[in-house]
Amino acid sequence: MDDRLMKQIEFIVEIDKLKSIYRQSFIMDGSRQENDAEHTWHLSMMAIILLEHANESLSIVRVLKMLFIHDIVEIDAGDTFAYDTTGYLDKFEREKAAAERIYGLLPIDQRDELFALWIEFEEGNTAEAQFAAAVDRLQPLLHNFYTEGKSWRKHGITREMVLDRNKHIALGSKKLWNYAQKLIDEAVEKGYLAK
Amino acid sequence: MDDRLMKQIEFIVEIDKLKSIYRQSFIMDGSRQENDAEHTWHLSMMAIILLEHANESLSIVRVLKMLFIHDIVEIDAGDTFAYDTTGYLDKFEREKAAAERIYGLLPIDQRDELFALWIEFEEGNTAEAQFAAAVDRLQPLLHNFYTEGKSWRKHGITREMVLDRNKHIALGSKKLWNYAQKLIDEAVEKGYLAK
Repeated sequence: MDDRLMKQIEFIVEIDKLKSIYRQSFIMDGSRQENDAEHTWHLSMMAIILLEHANESLSIVRVLKMLFIHDIVEIDAGDTFAYDTTGYLDKFEREKAAAERIYGLLPIDQRDELFALWIEFEEGNTAEAQFAAAVDRLQPLLHNFYTEGKSWRKHGITREMVLDRNKHIALGSKKLWNYAQKLIDEAVEKGYLAK
Repeated sequence: MDDRLMKQIEFIVEIDKLKSIYRQSFIMDGSRQENDAEHTWHLSMMAIILLEHANESLSIVRVLKMLFIHDIVEIDAGDTFAYDTTGYLDKFEREKAAAERIYGLLPIDQRDELFALWIEFEEGNTAEAQFAAAVDRLQPLLHNFYTEGKSWRKHGITREMVLDRNKHIALGSKKLWNYAQKLIDEAVEKGYLAK
């Protein structure tokens, strides 16, 4: 078998581990925490369905590729909880080392493409990165809302923290940020989220 | 909020249930069965990485959309095991009713697009459907191989059954079918799969 296909298969086998990286969000029936692999599928589906609400016209393939790979670094670096300010101090360095190792299993051209997409997502300066980040933020909001604030309540999160953390949804989609703010207000009214 | 966005959100919330539909395949560390949502992410990543091995040039966005949605019908219809010949008798009818209900939550244009993609995947006559089906078959082979035949052994599956079930990988990618056959032979040699 040729070396190129073998490298690709090695990468495909390695990333299976993403199915065992658990996030702070619960699946919507509240029965267990969500893992990064199923989270990524959900985001990808959201990007397809909500594309018409993006602020700018963009390449959906690039959005999807960014979403598919953005959490793979957590296989080595672990999930850093969105409100963990200490964890965020060295998050980029930990994740960069992970990106180099894991994308590095691939043939060089594919390694370079995925690494560049990951950096683009992290930097958040393009229309694609901003829309990808918008759905990546909106999804946990929905999960918190539909589990009556299960993860918010567990970690003592407040309305102000959620607004501050998620306000850059507007960079990708003003319409989705408008919706998200209404969802947050309703969550406070219903007692899912502290004022 | 406008009715269109509300329908889209309703669909996004409904499909979270895919995370609780478990397949016969085990994740590669063998610790538990895989669910449809994480399976779909893995397939999508495979389609991106292995695209160069497709027999024909094709639209990757259409492949990805087909993969994203092809298992959503199992929310209502359940997972039909690949080697369950009785389950296959009414599989299409059960899944078609599910497709109508679940895609039907969306605005009509999106409902029609997803339904058409699902039918295209099921019929398997286009280059995109054939490549999507090829990765959908290759992935469980890899999972069986890397769990030392855990699901094959549990269900008494033989080499001949696996070859017959998976031979249409060749319609999407001759190269991947060539690789799959070698993997199957190696699985027999190692005792993961019965002769």
